[in-house]
Amino acid sequence: MKVMLKVAYDGTNYHGWQYQTGQSTIEGMIRIALKELTGEEVELTGASRTDAGVHALGNIAVFENKTTIPGERLYLALNTKLPDDIRIIESIVTTDDFHPRFDAKEKTYEYHICNEIVMNPVNRLYAYHYPRALDIGAMNVAGGYIEGEHDFTSLSSVHAQVKNFVRTVYECCVTKKENGIVIKVRGNGFLYNMVRIIAGTLLDVGVGKITPEEIEKIILKKDRTLAGATLPACGLILKEIKYL
Amino acid sequence: MKVMLKVAYDGTNYHGWQYQTGQSTIEGMIRIALKELTGEEVELTGASRTDAGVHALGNIAVFENKTTIPGERLYLALNTKLPDDIRIIESIVTTDDFHPRFDAKEKTYEYHICNEIVMNPVNRLYAYHYPRALDIGAMNVAGGYIEGEHDFTSLSSVHAQVKNFVRTVYECCVTKKENGIVIKVRGNGFLYNMVRIIAGTLLDVGVGKITPEEIEKIILKKDRTLAGATLPACGLILKEIKYL
Repeated sequence: MKVMLKVAYDGTNYHGWQYQTGQSTIEGMIRIALKELTGEEVELTGASRTDAGVHALGNIAVFENKTTIPGERLYLALNTKLPDDIRIIESIVTTDDFHPRFDAKEKTYEYHICNEIVMNPVNRLYAYHYPRALDIGAMNVAGGYIEGEHDFTSLSSVHAQVKNFVRTVYECCVTKKENGIVIKVRGNGFLYNMVRIIAGTLLDVGVGKITPEEIEKIILKKDRTLAGATLPACGLILKEIKYL
Repeated sequence: MKVMLKVAYDGTNYHGWQYQTGQSTIEGMIRIALKELTGEEVELTGASRTDAGVHALGNIAVFENKTTIPGERLYLALNTKLPDDIRIIESIVTTDDFHPRFDAKEKTYEYHICNEIVMNPVNRLYAYHYPRALDIGAMNVAGGYIEGEHDFTSLSSVHAQVKNFVRTVYECCVTKKENGIVIKVRGNGFLYNMVRIIAGTLLDVGVGKITPEEIEKIILKKDRTLAGATLPACGLILKEIKYL
């Protein structure tokens, strides 16, 4: 039986999703919980290998097992074996050919920024503190230049395994919320650090360091040094992955 | 110079506001920070002695000192001496006769409840998890019976120092939010555990264990055993104190 898990986590205390010997990781914790529950050592394949400190509301993972626990009820049993900063939101029996990474059609990330002079302590683990005044209108114009199919070399970090830097961003918008802003980025796939660099570049636009129109040139030049900083992991949350 | 501080904190890692020898408390941390900053041992008087685990966005405290740092800039210097789960939002020079507790005219608390089957891990330190279906309309009718001037013996815990149990609640309402609900309670003062017991009693209404109309009888009988449970500290946040 192949089971798909929808996984939420507070990434603060973990070295990211991917299993690493001797490190506390989300994948590692779920594998331990599955071993306790089913008695089997299972392989777990995640859709998104989120970095250390990044949060998720809807990462997707699959595993095969022989348990008699009905797939749709498995999440409840699994949650009793997991620490409370990792929760399985749902579990669904899926087809043998389903692959959470290769079959993903759309991912949605949010980057949260606290834009007040003093950061609300209750948000400190889930937002980046940036107290300077921001021109949200200009940031949204800049977001428009990020939308579409582009080579995103300028807006990603070097990552050995990737050769094709072309991705399509369906939506890149900035909205105000209590205490700050949320940058929402929705696309067919993301390169290494891409959302954190987009967020850093939009901040440069927000304070007038670059104009919204310069985004177009930055993308065309395929040069990472022209874009903004990679913002810290704590502000990033993987909201949703769609398969359709 | 008498200085008023507006204090925000994540109460998760503290044994409440009030200074206790050998315990980590909000008051204790601010006193240490003030000592480091000014070189003086100061007395700190807080408006609200919040319990262990309770959060605040706007608690108020005052102290007297001889520092040459301008009162209005002091919060920035103080924040550099504090852990990041305690932040001073602002500092204002106040009059010698100002007392943060006795002069308080109105306090606003919020109690946050996650009302989904599985709790979002990112909310786990700032909300209480209650997955049963809730009738929010009935809860708001019940809130109407809590509003007004009443003897709140039934909706508070025994506390040695208090003799008068009459308080006025100006507003008690329940609103839906992403993942759950917020119970907002605004009044001229609050008894020990009062908001946490009001929240627990409103949950009893929400699941139909008691009717909204029974709230009136529960208040009149002055019997704590008739009301609902004292909900956990993590869901409670002191939002604002007004003086006017």
